[in-house]
Amino acid sequence: MLMKEVVMEQAKLAKQAALKMAGLTTEQKNSALFAMADALEKRKDEIIKINAEDVQAAQEKGTRQNMIDRLILNEKRIADMAEGLRQTALLPDPIGHEDFEIVRPNGLKIRRVRVPFGVVGIIYEARPNVTVDAAALCLKSSNACVLRGGSEAIRTNKKLTDILIDAEISCGIPEHAIEFLKITDRDAVIAMCRLRKLIDVIIPRGGAGLIARVVEHSTVPVIETGTGVCHIYVDKAANLEMALKVVLSAKISRPSVCNSMETLLIHKYIANEFLPDIAKLMIENKVELRGDELCREILPNMKAATEEDWRTEYNDLILSVKIVDSVEAAIDHINRYNTLHSDAIITNDKAAAEKFQTLVDAACVYVNASTRFTDGFEFGFGAEIGISTQKLHARGPMGLEALTTMKYLIEGNGQVR
Amino acid sequence: MLMKEVVMEQAKLAKQAALKMAGLTTEQKNSALFAMADALEKRKDEIIKINAEDVQAAQEKGTRQNMIDRLILNEKRIADMAEGLRQTALLPDPIGHEDFEIVRPNGLKIRRVRVPFGVVGIIYEARPNVTVDAAALCLKSSNACVLRGGSEAIRTNKKLTDILIDAEISCGIPEHAIEFLKITDRDAVIAMCRLRKLIDVIIPRGGAGLIARVVEHSTVPVIETGTGVCHIYVDKAANLEMALKVVLSAKISRPSVCNSMETLLIHKYIANEFLPDIAKLMIENKVELRGDELCREILPNMKAATEEDWRTEYNDLILSVKIVDSVEAAIDHINRYNTLHSDAIITNDKAAAEKFQTLVDAACVYVNASTRFTDGFEFGFGAEIGISTQKLHARGPMGLEALTTMKYLIEGNGQVR
Repeated sequence: MLMKEVVMEQAKLAKQAALKMAGLTTEQKNSALFAMADALEKRKDEIIKINAEDVQAAQEKGTRQNMIDRLILNEKRIADMAEGLRQTALLPDPIGHEDFEIVRPNGLKIRRVRVPFGVVGIIYEARPNVTVDAAALCLKSSNACVLRGGSEAIRTNKKLTDILIDAEISCGIPEHAIEFLKITDRDAVIAMCRLRKLIDVIIPRGGAGLIARVVEHSTVPVIETGTGVCHIYVDKAANLEMALKVVLSAKISRPSVCNSMETLLIHKYIANEFLPDIAKLMIENKVELRGDELCREILPNMKAATEEDWRTEYNDLILSVKIVDSVEAAIDHINRYNTLHSDAIITNDKAAAEKFQTLVDAACVYVNASTRFTDGFEFGFGAEIGISTQKLHARGPMGLEALTTMKYLIEGNGQVR
Repeated sequence: MLMKEVVMEQAKLAKQAALKMAGLTTEQKNSALFAMADALEKRKDEIIKINAEDVQAAQEKGTRQNMIDRLILNEKRIADMAEGLRQTALLPDPIGHEDFEIVRPNGLKIRRVRVPFGVVGIIYEARPNVTVDAAALCLKSSNACVLRGGSEAIRTNKKLTDILIDAEISCGIPEHAIEFLKITDRDAVIAMCRLRKLIDVIIPRGGAGLIARVVEHSTVPVIETGTGVCHIYVDKAANLEMALKVVLSAKISRPSVCNSMETLLIHKYIANEFLPDIAKLMIENKVELRGDELCREILPNMKAATEEDWRTEYNDLILSVKIVDSVEAAIDHINRYNTLHSDAIITNDKAAAEKFQTLVDAACVYVNASTRFTDGFEFGFGAEIGISTQKLHARGPMGLEALTTMKYLIEGNGQVR
């Protein structure tokens, strides 16, 4: 069979499973999740053994050490994955919730209820824990899934899905609820993205290149996740002590993640006081600063920021800094350069805060807090599929509900139109 | 300028307007809608005069009479459009509604509120009333819009948007809230679909060809509307008198629309009684019947249905008919051939009804009523953008809420992570 046909065949099997899964009860799903957790722990030696082969192959290919670190599974990491499965079982079931009901003058009773998507396609990169995580969240939301992991983890992912599928089927979950693509060819991603009507939604989880490729080629609806050029604006009415603490933490607490700050905006009235203080702290913490002209008037040694800097997600200990005239100018800058992810204002001026929250176009707009809180767990969702940076369907941190759609159920007694 | 650049330029202007529109009040929007209605009525002679040019050009091109009928504007139709604007003003404002609030253990207060998309792209065909309708719904939901109408109505649409824009601006709505593409070139549609980050969502309203072209080329998220291969299944436990009434009406009341029935499924236990009765009624009403083998055993004169018939949206006085063994067989047939639009069961068996509603994958699943009710007005939404047949974001009849997204507003007092 051609690669394309193999992918389509697997998606068809997942679709058939999905149509049955709409009838699963919460108890069936939860007992399967517990069984999957037990199976991972029971078969940990198999997993560790096969994972060593992936690690060795990666080392032979000269893969970077931090990538290899992400790839390695040990007892602790397997226990964490099992714990994740059990935590997912404990979350409320997103399916069946009724959020709208109306009885029309003609007597028709219309209800709207949460139902699964059907088949969710997830395309991701190296970390094998995403395999377990994605399978768990899709099952809990009564979706079948087609999983496509990175080639580095292919042996580990195959083993993990084999174990999960065995455990699931033994609990009465339909066969093919999890379909793992064994094809590591990059074109398999494109093939998946064209399976409109078989796959209901595709969620790419990975770098900007992967996401752009999926968006470009997909006819299946996509939920875009990820990129974050996040801003903090320190207003003239800011508590500067608080601003120092929040701004520093938003840059250095974990610079590699999407919710960390990339650009700092400072109101001109406080720049002479605030900029030298924050610059000192940043430099002590090994952060490279790149400023606009006005910054460099205050701190002439600062490197000059280019147009490119304003649009860059550094994911690193680098910060671009700009001095602005007003909250309006800060909003304009942010709406020009942000990625619709997370932006913050530090201010004690309620009117400025409200204007900022109303006019900044982003999934999450903060007042007096770090952008680093944009996260499904921090928001209390108990899970995170990713952070949506598009506006359709889901925006910001996505919990289980983002893996559902709705359906209208209408009851009558012979009404015609 | 190249055509692509013109389209991009207009989208950029709309984007700038959109960023300001997030701050509009309900009163501002409603007074603009009333002013737009008044302006259409006041300038009706201008509209009728220019519309006659479109009609004449269409006649000279040999356009079909039913297309020309849709194109014509007269006093009555202009009054209807104005009334539509006023009705939109009276609808509840979908913006600002808060549907989620939580205070986290660290003191962060997280709220989720409804906000506009930003720029909505609407691509539609001949009817000029869609221009007014789309502009009204986008304004009421605080969105800017880029409108692309069919070439037959180009002069009328230009005039209508000129009038609407004048009225809107006089009420303080930002300039460029409505951008109408004056380019009738088909490639303008493709150019629009590639403007990711400038246009937030594209809604095609029109035939299957238009929708397929948009889905194929768009990198902007699309809400697919339209196609309906709707089924009614008459169960063995049906009230057959009710079934005759509902089935007949669902086929003949308005065969050209997407929510009319295209395929009838009949349980084998009642087929001998029900099929001859419904066939007689259908034939009396000029409906052509196409049946499977079992139907033709009962009524040998019936034309044979082909595989193609099961997937066809006739939009005409044609009906395919199939006899099935069980509710499960009916569900399987529907899940294979439907377009996720609307399907119905006629039964007095509660268990069969529940199974049907749970397992049929469609936006609207009916018990004992006609599929013809799938409509924003019939559902009590007061408006209809279209009927979504995809699962992302909106499903089924879309009211004003479907033109909104949400945003998280987070307030803290210096929290860091």
